[in-house]
Amino acid sequence: MQGLILKIDCPDQHGIVAKIASYVADYAGNMTEFSQFTDAVNEKFFARVEIDTTHLSVEVEDFIDGFNTLGKSLHATWHFRRLPYKMRTAVLVTKTDHCLNEILWRTKLGEMPIEITSVIGNRDTCRSIAEQAGLPFHLIDMDGDQKEAGFQQIRSILHEEDVELTVLARFMQILPDWFCSEFGGKIINIHHSFLPAFIGANPYRQAYERGVKLIGATCHYVTSDLDAGPIIEQEVKRVQHFHTPKDLMRLGRDCERNAIARGIRYHVNDRTIIQNNRAIVFPD
Amino acid sequence: MQGLILKIDCPDQHGIVAKIASYVADYAGNMTEFSQFTDAVNEKFFARVEIDTTHLSVEVEDFIDGFNTLGKSLHATWHFRRLPYKMRTAVLVTKTDHCLNEILWRTKLGEMPIEITSVIGNRDTCRSIAEQAGLPFHLIDMDGDQKEAGFQQIRSILHEEDVELTVLARFMQILPDWFCSEFGGKIINIHHSFLPAFIGANPYRQAYERGVKLIGATCHYVTSDLDAGPIIEQEVKRVQHFHTPKDLMRLGRDCERNAIARGIRYHVNDRTIIQNNRAIVFPD
Amino acid sequence: MQGLILKIDCPDQHGIVAKIASYVADYAGNMTEFSQFTDAVNEKFFARVEIDTTHLSVEVEDFIDGFNTLGKSLHATWHFRRLPYKMRTAVLVTKTDHCLNEILWRTKLGEMPIEITSVIGNRDTCRSIAEQAGLPFHLIDMDGDQKEAGFQQIRSILHEEDVELTVLARFMQILPDWFCSEFGGKIINIHHSFLPAFIGANPYRQAYERGVKLIGATCHYVTSDLDAGPIIEQEVKRVQHFHTPKDLMRLGRDCERNAIARGIRYHVNDRTIIQNNRAIVFPD
Amino acid sequence: MQGLILKIDCPDQHGIVAKIASYVADYAGNMTEFSQFTDAVNEKFFARVEIDTTHLSVEVEDFIDGFNTLGKSLHATWHFRRLPYKMRTAVLVTKTDHCLNEILWRTKLGEMPIEITSVIGNRDTCRSIAEQAGLPFHLIDMDGDQKEAGFQQIRSILHEEDVELTVLARFMQILPDWFCSEFGGKIINIHHSFLPAFIGANPYRQAYERGVKLIGATCHYVTSDLDAGPIIEQEVKRVQHFHTPKDLMRLGRDCERNAIARGIRYHVNDRTIIQNNRAIVFPD
Repeated sequence: MQGLILKIDCPDQHGIVAKIASYVADYAGNMTEFSQFTDAVNEKFFARVEIDTTHLSVEVEDFIDGFNTLGKSLHATWHFRRLPYKMRTAVLVTKTDHCLNEILWRTKLGEMPIEITSVIGNRDTCRSIAEQAGLPFHLIDMDGDQKEAGFQQIRSILHEEDVELTVLARFMQILPDWFCSEFGGKIINIHHSFLPAFIGANPYRQAYERGVKLIGATCHYVTSDLDAGPIIEQEVKRVQHFHTPKDLMRLGRDCERNAIARGIRYHVNDRTIIQNNRAIVFPD
Repeated sequence: MQGLILKIDCPDQHGIVAKIASYVADYAGNMTEFSQFTDAVNEKFFARVEIDTTHLSVEVEDFIDGFNTLGKSLHATWHFRRLPYKMRTAVLVTKTDHCLNEILWRTKLGEMPIEITSVIGNRDTCRSIAEQAGLPFHLIDMDGDQKEAGFQQIRSILHEEDVELTVLARFMQILPDWFCSEFGGKIINIHHSFLPAFIGANPYRQAYERGVKLIGATCHYVTSDLDAGPIIEQEVKRVQHFHTPKDLMRLGRDCERNAIARGIRYHVNDRTIIQNNRAIVFPD
Repeated sequence: MQGLILKIDCPDQHGIVAKIASYVADYAGNMTEFSQFTDAVNEKFFARVEIDTTHLSVEVEDFIDGFNTLGKSLHATWHFRRLPYKMRTAVLVTKTDHCLNEILWRTKLGEMPIEITSVIGNRDTCRSIAEQAGLPFHLIDMDGDQKEAGFQQIRSILHEEDVELTVLARFMQILPDWFCSEFGGKIINIHHSFLPAFIGANPYRQAYERGVKLIGATCHYVTSDLDAGPIIEQEVKRVQHFHTPKDLMRLGRDCERNAIARGIRYHVNDRTIIQNNRAIVFPD
Repeated sequence: MQGLILKIDCPDQHGIVAKIASYVADYAGNMTEFSQFTDAVNEKFFARVEIDTTHLSVEVEDFIDGFNTLGKSLHATWHFRRLPYKMRTAVLVTKTDHCLNEILWRTKLGEMPIEITSVIGNRDTCRSIAEQAGLPFHLIDMDGDQKEAGFQQIRSILHEEDVELTVLARFMQILPDWFCSEFGGKIINIHHSFLPAFIGANPYRQAYERGVKLIGATCHYVTSDLDAGPIIEQEVKRVQHFHTPKDLMRLGRDCERNAIARGIRYHVNDRTIIQNNRAIVFPD
């Protein structure tokens, strides 16, 4: 399909849908999907629109340009994306490969419209998986006092490879504030959060000792406040007393794979809108 | 909130959303929720719109009347409902009371905007529950050759009490075709369907013998083809080999209570649109 | 069934199952269910045994007495309960009635072998529900400086009514340490925990602002460290951005009802064994 | 761990657990896990026992041999397996690779104690995946009248490679009766069953038209009555009206991957016992 996705948010006001929908109809666009959310608490309007542009009466560029006047009059923030597209995505890893594998497999199957630019690791463990998939692998030394230089190197790679989305697929490094700021809203992390959350070393042992009956994982945008960014997706599984810390890790992996796969999919399909510390998600 | 819910479906065509939203905006209605679905396979458009009419520039009747011209031009089927409202609902039972109890409790709590007109039973078992809740209870004899007369009696009650929705809350009688036709789209049933479905006597014993790992329940609209009407909601639970037929019944009850409660809620909030043999549901 | 449930835990050692099972077989008891868990991390053995005593070759008292020698030789803690039995249970409430209703309904249906001795409230709201169910209702003033006296009063009632289990069914009072100690392992609470947990006032508003995708509830034993006692059962539900704090409360109620019902059922069927800060649960 | 798994089933009778546990204890075996199920309906006893043989007072062979006398006296069927072990497993595929990938990944991670002997396909599509994983790939022509010969060829491969378990990982061929009989209880299939089941061509289109709210997959043992063998595991996911047949296939794949992975894991860890048309499963 030749098309566009429009994401927009603005202060709530009368007639927004009419104005947007009329603009699309005036130039013979066909809205194939329209998702909207009015946050009555914060008086904000959010929408995601898919438009079939096959029969558009103007050039797509002109259609996009012309929206400026309407957008500004609504005091909106908005974004158009052309379809079909593939989002240029870098995957950051350390040793663990289950999230990387999941991303590779779903990408190959066409479930996620991304083009993986490279895999970047601070350990060499995932190199062979990357290379078998025909992807460049960058080994970055981040140990000890190399950490800051390492993040500068990653920054360079992301710029050189024109990366639009960075996925932390079990990347075991805390990101510096400047990095989070520079790539704000473009970094997705998977957090092996036990529920209730366990802080400190060896969370699986803690979960075992506490006898939780559910474990889970959280996929979220990264902000400088690590693990507290807007949540995109969460997943849980039932566990029992006989599950050892090792079993909990195994079941946790399944939660992580599912949550990160859905989280990326929502992001690259423009199904998320960040509002302060939360993410509006229009799931598919 | 003073408001309206508009449900509409029509052949898919360009500019529908713009036309509907503009109509609302033209008379200073405020769309607080807009859910839409384009069925590309069948080329149909479906929408549900919630409109805050507080600042409407015309009388609500005139707003509703005026929509006729637009609706007809779209070759649409549509329906307006005024908010707040409570749907007049009759609950039909036999012996089992768990679905009835669930409905009573959620109604009392304000979770479902219904007004229960009466409880109708072909056994006397649920009389005390109905009466404790301050509701009329009609005992209808449907045994043997009284069945047809019984349904005629129920029909009379539904008309006299001005019933808009009939809920079969474990009502163990097969409805005659004329009854299904007369109240088409206004009868909701809960089916204790095991998955995969077991037909014939004693389904719980069959499920036990087959060793299913999931059981469930299905809430659906009633058509003359019993248990095959449009599905509104389904619910499942995990089971294991040690669950006896009696345990399966217990767990099945929980599935039924949840599925029927959500199914009624969706219906009375106009979140369902029947399309042939399926139900479009905009969940909340 | 005439029978016994044996719960036992002891340091792990060779031959425990053989010794227990042989003891039962020696006196013609029939083990109908045997659940066991060896905690390799802490080198502890836990078991729950259901014994059909119909053909026992000795008196039940003598069977129970005779186990002393074996139990002591294993350095075990153990407990026998005679079947059929109903556990004498008090339900403590404040204003909210959904957990109380769930308990009453499941008790009536025979799903939970308890006998409710009375409902105790620090508000009068649930009186009519209790009385309609034919149960005594005690109103206890716990406001301001009446709190300590109030707990003394509850203590007296629990003793007078020979209560074995106290259920906090949305009882909005923090229990004094002496109360937790005196009834240790015999108080079950339901915690409206959002996941991740939100502390402080108005957790539902906080969950909304944080945009969680899952909410839940936790049923646990009460210890003096409130909300941190051994977890018996947890329940979660998916939520989305459009769920208002009020919706989250509604969905949270469903989590609470399910979790508390299963938690009580496990406890009264002796399916839980407390080990330090966690509960071993043999679910049915 | 040096150890044994014992699976046993026999007519229910007094003292079974005592006899088995005493036999183990008499020769200084340590039961680390004991799972038991008494089927009161059919008067059958089932158990799975894990035994640590580190300190066994006799040779393992002698321990296994000596059990004969007890086993026969109980009129039991039983089986010992030595730990650690890896089950020799063949994976049969056609074109689709998601189940194969899942099996390869979990095997590599050590989640499933299997050794994949080869991948066998009636299409060449999965060859590269197999070869990248260092596994032999056998292409078998089964088209038209080659079908019977094809199954004879597979039979030869299974015998030559000493295969203990055959997994149909989306193998789109109906097995001949003789094949099912010869490898009875040693073939696991994943069935893309929609719930309720749809028969005939294009089940995903049918599910879409019916508007089901849940889809699922079933992992089961293969018997000559295809898709009706004992169920090992089932998995479901929620779907909505907007999910196209293609979406349903995507979500169905996730169900299939999860169900087959758990199903295989249960089988190779001897956690399943087939009883007539159902499988007793002691999950971990």
